[in-house]
Amino acid sequence: MVGGGQLARMTAQAAIGLGIDFRVLAERADDSAAQVCAGTRIGDYRSAGDVLSFGAECDVVTFDHEHVPAAILTALADVTAVRPDGAALRFAQDKGAMRDRLSALDALKGLPVRCPRYRRVASLAEVTEFAQAGGGWPVALKATTGGYDGKGVWICENEDAAADVLAHGLDLLAEEFVPFDRELAVLVARSPKGQGAVYPVVQTVQVNGICREVISPAPDLDPELATVAQRVGLTIAAELGVTGLLAVELFELADELIINELAMRPHNCGHWTIDAARTSQFEQHLRAVLDLPLGSPVLTSPAAVMVNVLGGEDPDLYSRLVHVMAADPGVKVHLYGKAVRPGRKVGHVTVAGDDLADLRDRGCRAANYLSHGTEQPAEGSGR
Amino acid sequence: MVGGGQLARMTAQAAIGLGIDFRVLAERADDSAAQVCAGTRIGDYRSAGDVLSFGAECDVVTFDHEHVPAAILTALADVTAVRPDGAALRFAQDKGAMRDRLSALDALKGLPVRCPRYRRVASLAEVTEFAQAGGGWPVALKATTGGYDGKGVWICENEDAAADVLAHGLDLLAEEFVPFDRELAVLVARSPKGQGAVYPVVQTVQVNGICREVISPAPDLDPELATVAQRVGLTIAAELGVTGLLAVELFELADELIINELAMRPHNCGHWTIDAARTSQFEQHLRAVLDLPLGSPVLTSPAAVMVNVLGGEDPDLYSRLVHVMAADPGVKVHLYGKAVRPGRKVGHVTVAGDDLADLRDRGCRAANYLSHGTEQPAEGSGR
Repeated sequence: MVGGGQLARMTAQAAIGLGIDFRVLAERADDSAAQVCAGTRIGDYRSAGDVLSFGAECDVVTFDHEHVPAAILTALADVTAVRPDGAALRFAQDKGAMRDRLSALDALKGLPVRCPRYRRVASLAEVTEFAQAGGGWPVALKATTGGYDGKGVWICENEDAAADVLAHGLDLLAEEFVPFDRELAVLVARSPKGQGAVYPVVQTVQVNGICREVISPAPDLDPELATVAQRVGLTIAAELGVTGLLAVELFELADELIINELAMRPHNCGHWTIDAARTSQFEQHLRAVLDLPLGSPVLTSPAAVMVNVLGGEDPDLYSRLVHVMAADPGVKVHLYGKAVRPGRKVGHVTVAGDDLADLRDRGCRAANYLSHGTEQPAEGSGR
Repeated sequence: MVGGGQLARMTAQAAIGLGIDFRVLAERADDSAAQVCAGTRIGDYRSAGDVLSFGAECDVVTFDHEHVPAAILTALADVTAVRPDGAALRFAQDKGAMRDRLSALDALKGLPVRCPRYRRVASLAEVTEFAQAGGGWPVALKATTGGYDGKGVWICENEDAAADVLAHGLDLLAEEFVPFDRELAVLVARSPKGQGAVYPVVQTVQVNGICREVISPAPDLDPELATVAQRVGLTIAAELGVTGLLAVELFELADELIINELAMRPHNCGHWTIDAARTSQFEQHLRAVLDLPLGSPVLTSPAAVMVNVLGGEDPDLYSRLVHVMAADPGVKVHLYGKAVRPGRKVGHVTVAGDDLADLRDRGCRAANYLSHGTEQPAEGSGR
């Protein structure tokens, strides 16, 4: 696995049971995955030499993130099996390519699902024209790749805000701002043989653009819309030739789904699966990229809630862990070994059971205590 | 953790989520745990120098096995926290000391539980005398420590068989042969603060002296006897000053329990907890030895069955793994990275659900296929 973040760390954890020789290409020896994985190599994912020599000692290479340059992915495919391959990864790397491809998919036509209205924009005039041609402001501007200040999406209320984004000189996509009811996500796995597996559709709760909470299954979701979402995930995975996991982030409107983003790797929306699905997303990703038969994606409890632990002011997570464990012996804590910085994802907690209000309460209390040493529910946590 | 076997491997897996810096003292770089744990040191647990220098870089030292010599445990306690400590471990290392201590425990008196009748024996005359004073032959001879040919217990049907065992010059205990109905085990955790947690009582199925299958909870167990077994586990842990896990192997008779063996570490009888308890025994052991609050030990399914995978003639486990995963997407496979040798424990499988007959069938099929490439249930598997 190229990349040494928490996704690689949790994949390493899953690899242990499968008895496979799992290796990580990490940038630094203290990266999240490098701390725990015996098979760590140090190297730069932007260096063809580093990636190719890593690939030469692997039967299959997969990824903790989507940032490996396309040219390196192409060269890597001459050395080893690359899953997902560069042709598929392009649609996770380039939002313009993704929009073009998904909009053209016949297999999605007739379903109550669509992409937002979009166009590539290079000037304020083009953004304004896009706004006027549709529902007016706000307009979502998205960097087709990358971004700045750790962000790649800006909801612009007016021309001034759009001008600020344009000033950074990025390749931009203007998209219709979707006044969604809530956000959903569907996570599917697909193997090279074409076997697919799909997890229950989840609700995600974002606060300030960061995933805060994931509820599985999405409460009170119309079963027909849930089936549509699962079919969308499986269809996109097959049509785009994805191997491994594909996460599709969706907006739910009254009677349709809007496709927001794609990711081709284990994803925050599936962290709950470690503790509350028969097969964790990390094991599933490994099974998929190794072309092993996929595991059962069913929930093992009626419901599960995952809450991200964001860094607070105090770096001493461990002392707060003691409190959380004492307060709730049933909460599952996952820490990533990352230095605590305000707002940084440093872990997550999962609670599983049958009373959703209770699970959300427990999950938010535990995560907030780990973040801030207080049990108050987070603003915007939905309660 | 001193020792690099599969127990350390699965403890390393549990340590990842807790965000602790977990290290293993393994004998060889290809030991089961050393293959996966970034924090591996190579050394000999029989070498005071190796163990003490390992201990000097740890806040707490615990064990994958009970073979560290007592003198080294004593010296180690001057360097770091040792959990369980030598005083407790003695009762897992020396069966004579264990029998003397448990027989003298007032806290167990009045409960329907006892040790088998026993005495130390050094000659055939003493064994014969022991047989004649009790129920006659067979007599169980046990090495108080160690053994030979990988065994430490011999059921002797007559004097000739006893003479063969005596010829090896071991320190021996003669014990009453218990014609048990079935074997049970209770697994408890105890922290230095004295907090205790107890898992559901399980049934273990042994074939040729090797644990084959574990069923959780033990089917049709009298709830009162289950409570007694749990109380026995918690009492022994407290009275013997155990920190970490304690497994108590029990024989069930019509209306009483006989204490068979003790182990002070994660134990085969608790492997099912990875997939079917809120807190796995490996996480629980870490929480206990680190003096963290203990986790909930409840089952997350109505029942779970664990079946050990023993090595067969063909070393290629991986190709058989594909078949097992395809045949049963719900089975959880855990491989230990150990070279396959006939009869050696190289992994286990767990299935969880509500239909016990179905779970046993699926578990045995998967384990047998991994062992032998055939789905026939094992002899003695109880079906």
